[in-house]
Amino acid sequence: MKKLINNVDDLLTDSLKGFARAHQDIVRFNAQPAFISRAPSTVQTKVALISGGGAGHEPLHAGLVGTGMLDAACPGQIFTSPSPDQMMAAVEAVDNGAGVLFIVKNYAGDVMNFEIAAEMIEGEHATVLVCDDVSLPADHSTGRRGVAGTLIVEKMVGAAAEAGADLNACQALGERVNKATASIGVALTSCTVPALGKPTFELAEDEMEFGVGIHGERGRETLPLKPAGEIVADLAAVIEAELNIKSGQQVLLHINGFGGTPLIELYAVYDLAAQYWQARGVEVVRSLVGNYTTSLDMAGCSITVTLLDNTLIELWDAPVHTANLRW
Amino acid sequence: MKKLINNVDDLLTDSLKGFARAHQDIVRFNAQPAFISRAPSTVQTKVALISGGGAGHEPLHAGLVGTGMLDAACPGQIFTSPSPDQMMAAVEAVDNGAGVLFIVKNYAGDVMNFEIAAEMIEGEHATVLVCDDVSLPADHSTGRRGVAGTLIVEKMVGAAAEAGADLNACQALGERVNKATASIGVALTSCTVPALGKPTFELAEDEMEFGVGIHGERGRETLPLKPAGEIVADLAAVIEAELNIKSGQQVLLHINGFGGTPLIELYAVYDLAAQYWQARGVEVVRSLVGNYTTSLDMAGCSITVTLLDNTLIELWDAPVHTANLRW
Repeated sequence: MKKLINNVDDLLTDSLKGFARAHQDIVRFNAQPAFISRAPSTVQTKVALISGGGAGHEPLHAGLVGTGMLDAACPGQIFTSPSPDQMMAAVEAVDNGAGVLFIVKNYAGDVMNFEIAAEMIEGEHATVLVCDDVSLPADHSTGRRGVAGTLIVEKMVGAAAEAGADLNACQALGERVNKATASIGVALTSCTVPALGKPTFELAEDEMEFGVGIHGERGRETLPLKPAGEIVADLAAVIEAELNIKSGQQVLLHINGFGGTPLIELYAVYDLAAQYWQARGVEVVRSLVGNYTTSLDMAGCSITVTLLDNTLIELWDAPVHTANLRW
Repeated sequence: MKKLINNVDDLLTDSLKGFARAHQDIVRFNAQPAFISRAPSTVQTKVALISGGGAGHEPLHAGLVGTGMLDAACPGQIFTSPSPDQMMAAVEAVDNGAGVLFIVKNYAGDVMNFEIAAEMIEGEHATVLVCDDVSLPADHSTGRRGVAGTLIVEKMVGAAAEAGADLNACQALGERVNKATASIGVALTSCTVPALGKPTFELAEDEMEFGVGIHGERGRETLPLKPAGEIVADLAAVIEAELNIKSGQQVLLHINGFGGTPLIELYAVYDLAAQYWQARGVEVVRSLVGNYTTSLDMAGCSITVTLLDNTLIELWDAPVHTANLRW
């Protein structure tokens, strides 16, 4: 394992300290228990949005804390759930009376710990569970995983909360965006978790992992590596069937890199995916390309599609000012 | 080699098509000869800034075309200089009468081809050569290489041009920023150029390449891998001596990832570098952390420092709206 680290146990804290130092105009870092929150501002009363999950997916979620998006993020150790005390402390810091909405990716540990925190909160609160990974069947025993679509839920609900939507409206919107969103990914290599020190899984030089999860979990199947056009068509076909997308539908197309794939490839994948939808009369009216929901240094990418209407387009377009998403 | 590509020869064009499609509000792509320029606007007369160089360093330079930064970028094939006809076509497209400034990284092929283009331009023009890589001695036979500091030159000169500075002022500013900037990097792995199909160089599991170039060129020396704190101190010491940085000096600190290193490590490196300067009384008043001047999938990073004054701070802070740098 080759990493730019001092020691494995300190990596997350060192990184969060650096993150907060580099973006002190936007965020603050609370060390014990660990969470990132917005820098103090004279913001009006609004629903407080809190997300979190294991580290290793940067810039998700800490990089998405700021005006128009999250109020706080609770990072666990790499690929490990944050603990309820982190969530409670974040609530204490950012709840301003309009209630708290947890946005949680559907993983057993995250779900359990956010539930424990929710039970201990005295104020008004609600949860949106993101489960956009359609590589698993809808009736999977633990449900579908939350992956790159989480950013889209956070962006749109963030815009609504900033504009004054109440807790019920934010929760309903989050569930609506989650239902309108489908993602599926492919890995060309494993990632290497520092504490483990070796690749999470093995792939032969001519193989890819189709339907991979964002921790390098095995997906649907290990398949022979193919040209990008065929991979994109296979991924998009799963999304097309899942969302039942018809000609004339407006969509947001998000190509998310897992960390180890260069931008030059991600934009080529974007073009192939955009062509796929164009050939079916589907209108890609918004897009996002880059490394947003990563798996450390894993090579590969996912495709996410969200069905849009005018309301969702307005929420996507609304100003956002975070460390890693800004317009 | 495992890449998300259809075929090696089409990768650059496919990627540029996708890039322009994803950012059609900001850029246009001209295919023959290839260049990226700003989307049409009713901009006032201003000096046109054109950069370019081999692909594989994304988001440099195409991702930095837009308001407050470049007017056009000419991408060569991966790690290969663009040709004079690309530069001439870009000049034709974006010169609006106030002159053209070429911003060129100091590599023999880039320098030669931009010179050829410059000789054929009829209108007023000038060139800034960026040579911020202090891993090589100042009297190196082909001069020092242009690396991650190029973005800083492009940002500051871009702000000045947008504000109406004339060609001479833009050139002088570019040379001033270049002189005030020093960079040095370290690689933990090689990158893999698609046309070559295998790593550019070999590093043992316990080695790093100190002073590496952004094409994976061998640097000062191959050294045993060390903890991040020691690596950062070694890199920063070279910059400190080069720029003769004193206590009280205000600086911009840029940690640039080469593509294959996760953000969690880059922010930890940022914190270590910021501590290094803090211990010396040097004030890090602006910063940038992320993958900006990449070497495809190479793991590692560089540290760049620019000496600031109030003028340069204002230019750095001025609004910028490009695909990959925005505030």
